[in-house]
Amino acid sequence: MDETTTPPRTAPGDTDREETAGESLFAEAVADWCRQLAGTLLEETGDRLLDTVRQAAGQLRELIECPGPVADAAPAAPPYRDRKGRLRNQTNPVMSARNPLAPPMVATGSGGAAEFSVVLPIQYQGPPRTLHGGYVSVLLDEAIWNAVRTEVRGISFTRELTVVYERPVPLGVPLTVTGRVTATEGRKTFAEGEIRSGGEICAHAHGLWIAPR
Amino acid sequence: MDETTTPPRTAPGDTDREETAGESLFAEAVADWCRQLAGTLLEETGDRLLDTVRQAAGQLRELIECPGPVADAAPAAPPYRDRKGRLRNQTNPVMSARNPLAPPMVATGSGGAAEFSVVLPIQYQGPPRTLHGGYVSVLLDEAIWNAVRTEVRGISFTRELTVVYERPVPLGVPLTVTGRVTATEGRKTFAEGEIRSGGEICAHAHGLWIAPR
Repeated sequence: MDETTTPPRTAPGDTDREETAGESLFAEAVADWCRQLAGTLLEETGDRLLDTVRQAAGQLRELIECPGPVADAAPAAPPYRDRKGRLRNQTNPVMSARNPLAPPMVATGSGGAAEFSVVLPIQYQGPPRTLHGGYVSVLLDEAIWNAVRTEVRGISFTRELTVVYERPVPLGVPLTVTGRVTATEGRKTFAEGEIRSGGEICAHAHGLWIAPR
Repeated sequence: MDETTTPPRTAPGDTDREETAGESLFAEAVADWCRQLAGTLLEETGDRLLDTVRQAAGQLRELIECPGPVADAAPAAPPYRDRKGRLRNQTNPVMSARNPLAPPMVATGSGGAAEFSVVLPIQYQGPPRTLHGGYVSVLLDEAIWNAVRTEVRGISFTRELTVVYERPVPLGVPLTVTGRVTATEGRKTFAEGEIRSGGEICAHAHGLWIAPR
């Protein structure tokens, strides 16, 4: 793009124009590139690190210069308008394809239950080859919250969450994370969930979600 | 570096040579650059996104070509040798300066207590302007585990963690996260902690850590 013909700048909060699908796909491709780079920083050292970062810089330049064909693709996490009409990005640090912190993931769910599958790379590592304990909570919180959302109108906020760690959650293999509502009492929703690897439960959780008055 | 004179590749797991301080500082600078880029992907849309990513690509190129003076600096998270002598990166997704997922942070602690301070940017956002509930658990898990580590010889693993959410944890302002051991019984350590913002407790947690036999 010619800098001299760049139209007035727009950003979430401004409402100048919608982002194009191509721009959203570009943002998601850069987020994915960031995930690869995070892996490089943690998997490599010394000369090999320098070489791989140099290659990565070249890939970013190519992404910027030749975004490639996007005609048939739809962005996974395009910006949206909030209730006040403001342009907002999907920032969710667990699910959004636009957030380099997210693996990312897509949850499916209905009728008080939700599920997603994910394979996690080295940047989520706590003890060697296993998921950091805090991120075990992240996966369970997100899956159970998605289950609550299918059951309860409007938004509910986590009030309490208890996670029980049965065995290490492995990196690099498919994990299945599920959530389900167990009871509702007025504004309160009780729900639970678990993380499975190879059919075995690695961790489970239960908690309370409350809808604001 | 001239590709033709690059020595044999080394990586965590290989033991060819230690990484230099300059290389570690470079890795940490790239991780920090990644954090900025993650913010850009979530704060910008459309033309402004394209411009800012283009600028970021230029900054990465400068980092690679002119790493700058590093004589007086010491890396925060250099690789280390594990018990078997293998070169390992500090991968911790909450603390390590080398991991773009980490804010990062440094915990201080002794005698069964630990504390750190952190300001979190947009990539950790759940509800607008506040921390994702799963990441509330991440901060508490990490602070309390650091407290346990000051009290207990060797490693202890989280068995159970309960987090109580009192009010939203704000982004963009200093948070103080503390952990402390409340009791020990043989291989079991009981501990608790909280997240404070502006003196108010936003969330607290308690849990059980167990040392392997």
